[in-house]
Amino acid sequence: MTERETDNLRVQWLVERTVHRERSKFQEIAVVDTVEFGRMLLLDGIIQTSLRDEFVYHEMLAHVPLFLHPRPERVLVIGGGDGGTVREVLKHPEVRRVHLVEIDERVIAVSRQYLPELASSFDDPRVEIRIDDGIEYVKRHRNAYDVVLVDSSDPLGPAVGLFTSEFYGNVAEVLRKDGILAVQSESYIFSADLVQSVYRAIGEHFPSVFIYTANVPTYSVGPWTFTLGSKRFLDSVAPRRANGKLRTRYYTPEIHRAAFVLPRFVQELLSEQEDEAGTGTRGA
Amino acid sequence: MTERETDNLRVQWLVERTVHRERSKFQEIAVVDTVEFGRMLLLDGIIQTSLRDEFVYHEMLAHVPLFLHPRPERVLVIGGGDGGTVREVLKHPEVRRVHLVEIDERVIAVSRQYLPELASSFDDPRVEIRIDDGIEYVKRHRNAYDVVLVDSSDPLGPAVGLFTSEFYGNVAEVLRKDGILAVQSESYIFSADLVQSVYRAIGEHFPSVFIYTANVPTYSVGPWTFTLGSKRFLDSVAPRRANGKLRTRYYTPEIHRAAFVLPRFVQELLSEQEDEAGTGTRGA
Repeated sequence: MTERETDNLRVQWLVERTVHRERSKFQEIAVVDTVEFGRMLLLDGIIQTSLRDEFVYHEMLAHVPLFLHPRPERVLVIGGGDGGTVREVLKHPEVRRVHLVEIDERVIAVSRQYLPELASSFDDPRVEIRIDDGIEYVKRHRNAYDVVLVDSSDPLGPAVGLFTSEFYGNVAEVLRKDGILAVQSESYIFSADLVQSVYRAIGEHFPSVFIYTANVPTYSVGPWTFTLGSKRFLDSVAPRRANGKLRTRYYTPEIHRAAFVLPRFVQELLSEQEDEAGTGTRGA
Repeated sequence: MTERETDNLRVQWLVERTVHRERSKFQEIAVVDTVEFGRMLLLDGIIQTSLRDEFVYHEMLAHVPLFLHPRPERVLVIGGGDGGTVREVLKHPEVRRVHLVEIDERVIAVSRQYLPELASSFDDPRVEIRIDDGIEYVKRHRNAYDVVLVDSSDPLGPAVGLFTSEFYGNVAEVLRKDGILAVQSESYIFSADLVQSVYRAIGEHFPSVFIYTANVPTYSVGPWTFTLGSKRFLDSVAPRRANGKLRTRYYTPEIHRAAFVLPRFVQELLSEQEDEAGTGTRGA
């Protein structure tokens, strides 16, 4: 199996078997077993997650924003049909309701069948699945959530609209006071333009915006970024609640803080843009 | 061009042209121009460095240990025939002498010709090149350096002996009081056993041992580790000298501190081993 990272760089994985393959209304969904990274979910041929390191991505997308919120009771996950992000959100005892808004119900069905390590989280009574387009969903709801997590595929096909300023503006409205948004925002190596544009677009609607990173080997090449916006001005990105007994394999309070520290060339990428845009927010 | 990361994972780079190829007494040396990562140096078909991100690796191998030393006047670099590590070492005004001990003079000659961005550092009057086997070199010198940097290729062929406890013991002797050793120690994803064994072996000769990481996209997949030993017990890994006007593209004092923060599963990898070995040093 070959994944094209760019026109000039490909990664090849040895596949033991193709477990499932179907074409849904929105995309091609495949589940394959690889030797090196275990079972993988692919959408339109692009790796979404692998059992080997899915915990890195899902823990970091969920726990960083949740620990920055003083009391995250109501959480909206957009995308994330494999269930991994919901599984991490549910580890916080403060969380009372999780709404998962996924456009493609077949991703959920396939994950329930072939990725129970992630999708069994959907059986928790606090979870409600809503098959819907996240872009439209956030236009129809107001002041309803404490944290919104955008667990999207790459900005191609159905996910394009999840990377726009208009969408982030609606997310700001769907959030309650102190609300926090976190989105997966690709790699700063091969998608530097996207990292810049998401950072700028979220900054148009949230007084504080930060980029943090995690190392997800499955998403070669380079560190993965997440972009976080807070409705309340944050003077620190340190966790606001104690870690307690939350069981993780990647996340720690120290990793939380360190994840916001960006290499100089990435800081410069963001501040160049700030100079152009005239905004005053900072990435770290 | 294909690089095999494991039996089950390969990365393919589109190559514009092969600039140079020769077989030295020790290895095959090649210089190629890739579309995505610019010019690359390969030894026995394994990528050593690329112009796109060589600064990440070289800055982190050099500046972290140098800023942990109160006064690094004499520095020994073992390997590093491309010159990138020496270039970074020379940015510290405290440094009076840099000895580069490289086993293969052809790596230096090829780098001088085709990678002047790195190898022009050899023209600095503070630098002396010694064509020698680093393993033997550290047996013949004593109490001679403040910092030793091991900038080796993978633990195959001539570099195998640079990953042994015996070698680290000799490095401890070649270091002066307060001396610091830093070595490149591969990826914790695909070389977890090596990361463990280097950590343990350095801990046998140095009272403080730490692992830190950097993101070098060229070295897909996963973060790269460096292992650092200090002859003086260190109760903090924070920089011990001011950053001053040192020009970097990746390193900052904040990156320095954050690089020592390891994900929980990596911490556990190291502490399992400590339990087995009965040592008391910690990775972060």
